[in-house]
Amino acid sequence: MIDFPYIGDICRPTGSKIVMLVVDGLGGLPHPETGRSELESARLPNLDTLAQRSAAGLTTPVAPGIAPGSGPGHTALFGYDPVKYLMGRGVLEALGLGVELRDGDVAVRCNFCTMDESGLIVDRRAGRIPTEESRPLVEELSRIEVPGARLSVHQGRDYRFVIVLSGEGLGTNVCETDPSVTGGAPLEPAALSDDSRVTARALSVFAGEARKRLAGRATANMVLLRGFAKLPDWPRMDDVYRLRPAAIAAYPMYRGLATLLGMEVLPTGDTFDDELDTLERSFEDHDFFFLHYKPADAAGEDGDFGAKVAALEELDAGIPRLLSLGADTLVVAGDHSTPAIMASHSWHPVPLLVNSRLTAGDGVPAFTERGCATGSIGRIPATSVMMLAMANAGKLVRFGP
Amino acid sequence: MIDFPYIGDICRPTGSKIVMLVVDGLGGLPHPETGRSELESARLPNLDTLAQRSAAGLTTPVAPGIAPGSGPGHTALFGYDPVKYLMGRGVLEALGLGVELRDGDVAVRCNFCTMDESGLIVDRRAGRIPTEESRPLVEELSRIEVPGARLSVHQGRDYRFVIVLSGEGLGTNVCETDPSVTGGAPLEPAALSDDSRVTARALSVFAGEARKRLAGRATANMVLLRGFAKLPDWPRMDDVYRLRPAAIAAYPMYRGLATLLGMEVLPTGDTFDDELDTLERSFEDHDFFFLHYKPADAAGEDGDFGAKVAALEELDAGIPRLLSLGADTLVVAGDHSTPAIMASHSWHPVPLLVNSRLTAGDGVPAFTERGCATGSIGRIPATSVMMLAMANAGKLVRFGP
Repeated sequence: MIDFPYIGDICRPTGSKIVMLVVDGLGGLPHPETGRSELESARLPNLDTLAQRSAAGLTTPVAPGIAPGSGPGHTALFGYDPVKYLMGRGVLEALGLGVELRDGDVAVRCNFCTMDESGLIVDRRAGRIPTEESRPLVEELSRIEVPGARLSVHQGRDYRFVIVLSGEGLGTNVCETDPSVTGGAPLEPAALSDDSRVTARALSVFAGEARKRLAGRATANMVLLRGFAKLPDWPRMDDVYRLRPAAIAAYPMYRGLATLLGMEVLPTGDTFDDELDTLERSFEDHDFFFLHYKPADAAGEDGDFGAKVAALEELDAGIPRLLSLGADTLVVAGDHSTPAIMASHSWHPVPLLVNSRLTAGDGVPAFTERGCATGSIGRIPATSVMMLAMANAGKLVRFGP
Repeated sequence: MIDFPYIGDICRPTGSKIVMLVVDGLGGLPHPETGRSELESARLPNLDTLAQRSAAGLTTPVAPGIAPGSGPGHTALFGYDPVKYLMGRGVLEALGLGVELRDGDVAVRCNFCTMDESGLIVDRRAGRIPTEESRPLVEELSRIEVPGARLSVHQGRDYRFVIVLSGEGLGTNVCETDPSVTGGAPLEPAALSDDSRVTARALSVFAGEARKRLAGRATANMVLLRGFAKLPDWPRMDDVYRLRPAAIAAYPMYRGLATLLGMEVLPTGDTFDDELDTLERSFEDHDFFFLHYKPADAAGEDGDFGAKVAALEELDAGIPRLLSLGADTLVVAGDHSTPAIMASHSWHPVPLLVNSRLTAGDGVPAFTERGCATGSIGRIPATSVMMLAMANAGKLVRFGP
């Protein structure tokens, strides 16, 4: 794990290949009617067989009881302490929209809200207006100019958008303008330290201009600004692990995160088959592949149990193609659980399997929450997965005399 | 574990006896032809029966994925954080040869190498010349005198040897002379800080003299020096745990390590029967016994699956004698796994059993990797084993009000 102080002494570059398949929102909970979780309900012949002949276990994404966002869920799997290496919300939001950020840029997570005639907020999310309705408003806001920085405005989903300030000397220590309760007025984006005065001035002008340009509307007549953040300066996976890592992910957020961590992002399509095509094409060029599978989480977040089962079965159908590549180490992990009955991320431990010629084959009955609980890996922090993968691929030498 | 801040408050001396049997390299991996590990292949009627009526589990020596050397593997079992309490390479090597080190001595791990006519290294290990060939060379080098320190030279295995500098003001912050690649010249053992100038000067003279005395040889015509280290000043087990601890180990390295940790080293013979004789003779004189069994690791490191199975069966034959002593707590643990199919130490979790009148008897099917995975202890850091042993022997009082 990245906090292991001797990591630089024990990692060695080799030609062996690691594939880490991250199934977003992998874990779940039983359906009240059947008593079976999504993994237990799905027909997963390939994953079940693979689990039986692998080392199996459960990962704790952050700590028992903590449901992580996508950021900490993933950084942990790559060995970064998710509490220490926590990305600013504005950056994650910008990466999720595919916005390219440069060092020094400040990204801000914004949304439309609705004020009454006296300027007090009556709806902090402007009735969750759909993207079609917010798009012309975002276009209008993108014409605003601010002092001391270049401004760009990027449409998000529904009532959300992102602004990016570029320029010199932009701090992020600025008061968020969302009062967090209805009945209050939007707050002033005041600088909380000297290094953030330029940012505060630019955002104040932006908020004032936005209020003017949205005036007269019944809803979505104001904006709220928060999550001011810059790209963090984190250790890169290629340096830390002496790898040539690559990321294959259909969703922009995961590509952005991978770039931050020093992975090369390989262009790919929208489906798991597209991702496998990309993996096959580039298999010789890298020694570590992060392969991201999103549909299980999306279905879980929608609270659609059947759709999550179907997403897992679709994943299972691609496993033989993945196995045929003959990676030295294959890890199947999840960034967190997303039980459909909760329609949200959760804290529940996440199934894990590690397969290499050095895994014994625990004989767990199936690749499920309850099955993996009986495996030899036990329950480990997600931050340990990366070192297990490295060890199984022969990329770690002995620690200590 | 030793980092538990209230350890001094809860340990109490009692007359009860703990025996910790450390089976070096205990864990393994399945043989590709049978699918059964060394422990699963061996006939171990005594250990299997003992495991069934003990608390069983698996230990993680350092962290998932980290394969420890013998030093960290053992210090962890005695409750010392193996990352924080890491011994210098030279010290471990000297201890392994049975060299007695005193406080302030600097031990150096050395080996013969081969240079070409222009002084560039063509073989960093001098063709791994056997001990018979290196012995007269070591004798020649032992006649060298160096300024500022007394020098002693000690034969190691094959192409390796150890030198010890004794005297005042000897630091260890010196550049290693092994360039780590062939084609380079040996580096100068330069002082990297002021406190190490005397050491550097002595080593420089030694290296220069060695070059002269080995000149004209086709191979093994130079030496490389590294792993400069002193005895560390660690908390002693007798102080930390309020024990009268003793070590019974056939191999010098483990006796040296035990001395460092404050154990009394009991003279013993080469076999497990000899060690059991020693244990029986001194059973009344101590309340903690570290009993070391080496053959399983040696066979594993040789990649000899059958020899490791035989070593485990030989151990099993001694268990009834061990049990007949009636220790209040018997722990059977391993410092790390040494799967014969890897012919090296590994990171895999290690079987553990703890037997006392206060262990429930988990009913695990056998003393194997897969069997112990189902035990009540679960998977714990190796640093927790010592406190479990103490608790089972009634040597810990309640923590906190």
